[in-house]
Amino acid sequence: MLASGGGTNLQALLDAPEVKPWISLVVSDRPRAGALERARMACVEAVVLEPGGFATREEHDRALAETLRNSGIDVLLLAGYMRILGAPLVRSFPERILNVHPSLLPAFPGASAVRDALDWGAKVTGATVHMVDEEVDHGPIVLQEAIPILPGDDEAGLHARIQAVEHRLFPLGARLLVEGRLKVEGRRVHILGPGSDGDPGSAGTR
Amino acid sequence: MLASGGGTNLQALLDAPEVKPWISLVVSDRPRAGALERARMACVEAVVLEPGGFATREEHDRALAETLRNSGIDVLLLAGYMRILGAPLVRSFPERILNVHPSLLPAFPGASAVRDALDWGAKVTGATVHMVDEEVDHGPIVLQEAIPILPGDDEAGLHARIQAVEHRLFPLGARLLVEGRLKVEGRRVHILGPGSDGDPGSAGTR
Repeated sequence: MLASGGGTNLQALLDAPEVKPWISLVVSDRPRAGALERARMACVEAVVLEPGGFATREEHDRALAETLRNSGIDVLLLAGYMRILGAPLVRSFPERILNVHPSLLPAFPGASAVRDALDWGAKVTGATVHMVDEEVDHGPIVLQEAIPILPGDDEAGLHARIQAVEHRLFPLGARLLVEGRLKVEGRRVHILGPGSDGDPGSAGTR
Repeated sequence: MLASGGGTNLQALLDAPEVKPWISLVVSDRPRAGALERARMACVEAVVLEPGGFATREEHDRALAETLRNSGIDVLLLAGYMRILGAPLVRSFPERILNVHPSLLPAFPGASAVRDALDWGAKVTGATVHMVDEEVDHGPIVLQEAIPILPGDDEAGLHARIQAVEHRLFPLGARLLVEGRLKVEGRRVHILGPGSDGDPGSAGTR
């Protein structure tokens, strides 16, 4: 689990009984990230790797990769992690890194997705859980859910409504991933039924 | 009303009692467009302007503009009209041209929106009614509605479900436009209540 911010998405994961046991390490690039405190409160190891402590981005990435390897991490969940992962790190977790983004990708990628949707005058936006590949906000989509943009919405209010969706969608996506129920075919992600033998014919409705 | 295809969006407009009286002319660039027959069945004037009959795109555009002017057209509705309108024509109907597009713009612009959403592995798509400006599939958004992409969806099935939404959304957007209930502020379109004095504070929930 990589986090930079307040850690509400981490909290949603820690609050999900089917996901919590899988969370073994929280790494943040910011020593004051709320996620670190939330991890410690839940007796999950919390590590800070500040980019400033490394000479280059590559070195920071290498230290991160080593930390993950030493902990035997199998699946990587990004939640509000504001740094772009280096390509070697992404490649060492193929189809094992999940991100949550506050828009219906491919609409409004980037760090100001909620603001951008408002500025564009969109009437619908939402949340996306997707696998991370080497491009920003680009990998195969696991789950999406739409919400309407209401006439009086400002950025904070809209963001809060999107986060409520994220807090449902991200634990679900994480569970599907750790349970081996995501089958990736090109850009399409099939969701397999519980106990499935890998036949996408038994996919659910998401 | 400009149409190129089967004319199901035109039919939805003709079937809407609040919109039908406003439809005074249907123009198509294709002599066999189903929309022409639908127009004649509803006693609405139907005109064909084939691009092949004109030396340049500009001449075709000028003929179209003249046809519209001669008929005293005030509002222009595009439905499956597969040609890009020339800038002078767009400029002569400022905020008076409405298009319907089978995706949640800005995602999946262009002529193969349904196919593109499937190929991208999106889990949500939808329909957009928007004002036409000088860029393709770009103008201010009037209405959007999302629908889920289901595991077994092929292009035809998904397109049919999107069209069902379009057939609700487009007549609604047309009605709001002819009733003067759309207030454009930059890229944002405020929807005013019926009989409104133009105060966006009284906007509806779409």
